[in-house]
Amino acid sequence: MSKYWNKTINETTPYVAGEQPKAGEKVIKLNTNENPFPPSPAVAKAIAEFDASQLRLYPDTNATPIVNAISEVENVKPSQVFVGNGSDEVLALCFQTFFEKACDTDLPVLTPEFSYSFYPVYEEFYRIRPKKIPLREDFRLDPSDYKGVPNCGIAIANPNAPTSRAISLDDIAAICSANPDSVVLIDEAYAYFEENYETAVSLLPRFPNLCVVRTTSKSYSLAGIRIGYAIASEELIEGLLRARDSFNSYPIDRLAQAIGAAAISDTEYHAKCREELIKVRKYTADELKSLGFEMPESSANFLFAKPPVCISAETLYKNLRAKGILVRYFSTPGINDRLRISIGTKDEMEEFIRNVREEIANVKNS
Amino acid sequence: MSKYWNKTINETTPYVAGEQPKAGEKVIKLNTNENPFPPSPAVAKAIAEFDASQLRLYPDTNATPIVNAISEVENVKPSQVFVGNGSDEVLALCFQTFFEKACDTDLPVLTPEFSYSFYPVYEEFYRIRPKKIPLREDFRLDPSDYKGVPNCGIAIANPNAPTSRAISLDDIAAICSANPDSVVLIDEAYAYFEENYETAVSLLPRFPNLCVVRTTSKSYSLAGIRIGYAIASEELIEGLLRARDSFNSYPIDRLAQAIGAAAISDTEYHAKCREELIKVRKYTADELKSLGFEMPESSANFLFAKPPVCISAETLYKNLRAKGILVRYFSTPGINDRLRISIGTKDEMEEFIRNVREEIANVKNS
Repeated sequence: MSKYWNKTINETTPYVAGEQPKAGEKVIKLNTNENPFPPSPAVAKAIAEFDASQLRLYPDTNATPIVNAISEVENVKPSQVFVGNGSDEVLALCFQTFFEKACDTDLPVLTPEFSYSFYPVYEEFYRIRPKKIPLREDFRLDPSDYKGVPNCGIAIANPNAPTSRAISLDDIAAICSANPDSVVLIDEAYAYFEENYETAVSLLPRFPNLCVVRTTSKSYSLAGIRIGYAIASEELIEGLLRARDSFNSYPIDRLAQAIGAAAISDTEYHAKCREELIKVRKYTADELKSLGFEMPESSANFLFAKPPVCISAETLYKNLRAKGILVRYFSTPGINDRLRISIGTKDEMEEFIRNVREEIANVKNS
Repeated sequence: MSKYWNKTINETTPYVAGEQPKAGEKVIKLNTNENPFPPSPAVAKAIAEFDASQLRLYPDTNATPIVNAISEVENVKPSQVFVGNGSDEVLALCFQTFFEKACDTDLPVLTPEFSYSFYPVYEEFYRIRPKKIPLREDFRLDPSDYKGVPNCGIAIANPNAPTSRAISLDDIAAICSANPDSVVLIDEAYAYFEENYETAVSLLPRFPNLCVVRTTSKSYSLAGIRIGYAIASEELIEGLLRARDSFNSYPIDRLAQAIGAAAISDTEYHAKCREELIKVRKYTADELKSLGFEMPESSANFLFAKPPVCISAETLYKNLRAKGILVRYFSTPGINDRLRISIGTKDEMEEFIRNVREEIANVKNS
């Protein structure tokens, strides 16, 4: 509390990001869903070829090189693409643009009960009325739960985090159809970690109220460069541009524009990394199941796993932390019996499994 | 207007940035106050030495390398520094953090009548009550005009833009003293273009309500990389961190962190560029005056000049544009008789002066 902060800042509980190790600290980092593979070789090339003297000039406000790369890869018009400083910024601007404030409407924004923990922060920060929709058995999202519930907007992560479960395009279409006057935000931060992943982008011609949000952080191994984007109808994109130009007209720097465009255009490398990640995910899930863990089928680059009864999620989290292995633990009731485990390299996951096995053996022997 | 945009987006008039030339278009660009000199050689070195494989990992949320460089150069504690994605983002977060919304208070935020045109946009976007304080003769800001005026905050650019005039540290101290319960934002985007520039940072030990905002865009020739910062009491910085973590926890990418720290630490190069810019500014002002222009003494990297009666600012702006010379013209009544002219290299300004002389000769001969 401070008399210099306004009411909103005094009343908002900020987001707490996953722990970042200190510089030089050697850890196996499976807590913030980063991609274990380096970015495309085209990224290093773009950096090597970059002329530093350009940096004295403002960047292109629309990040045109990235917009064009996305337009080509996703087969949409450039005017259907909005680029921001990481998908957190894009999501924040979506909440600011599409969802009415509590002072202007009695209607809430619908989000799944367990989902990205930044959504409730945006709701507090922008004073939007929240309404959490419970998930069904094993964290399944049922689209019928989003029908007939008065709202001024809907935000769903697909695949959902931290649950790792995805819904189908038919499910998304059903939600968009049932809510024609609300913007339906589909946050695909964890998309592209499934063999036959179908992005909601293909639904855009049918639904002017659908906004698909993505990031290069996960699937393109670029968490360090901060590029997120929205793909939607021109009407929604124009709203986002208005918000951007009321906040920060030049969100993406010149180097990031060159890097983002290079990474997105290298579709071959992208597909190769996905394939390898899916293999390692399967290995990890199988090993954990054989140790007594339970988890839903994952469509993301992480698992949401419940340890066997002999050890609590919190204890396992702490013990692994002490050994330099970081996974994510949420103390929220309803999910505090689980760990969210990012998929690393094969070597990292073998080391992780070795340590988990040891922890379980220790409690069984004590 | 769109039914999918909320009330705020439908009612806010976004900021319009200065024109950016198209890729490949050859112009003399004196319209967005960029620095004509390339960034420090340390920047190219930081880029060349950067390991692209790092980019798979999230950056340091606090941009510690930049915070430490600023802390050293400005002689403040690291906990007194906040880094954001350009000073526009830092200013936006300041408006969001320190100034109450109209629904929570009847008090307005005070800004000079003519100042950075983003301030009124932030006020609309964040629904803050605005109050413009007139300037005195020749755009002089009188600190006594900020005494006894009930307010919930004050934002002043110093040097002011587009007027180019600066106020003294005593003036700033007087404003901070007279408004102990309000945050006083001093936007020093155009600082460091004066021989004996005294930053308001030296006032921080006396005023916990003072927040100084800077950018690397102008004085460090890094408009293309998007790094702004605030220097203030720990209490104010903590508020900004809360806002950041309610919006976007990782605003500065890994490369930008390396580049910003390198540029800020190269104080020698910084001083050399300033010296040269001051010389070219003097040359340009002298030439314009000899052509009949009037302007206040500039403390910034631009001039705010009123053409002689024979030609209007708007006509001169358009005619120069047709010749590939971009300067900034504002249609706002009260300043629509002037041009804001960024200081370029000596060659660019000679070319600019040649063209202005020609335009004036043309109207006199016609």
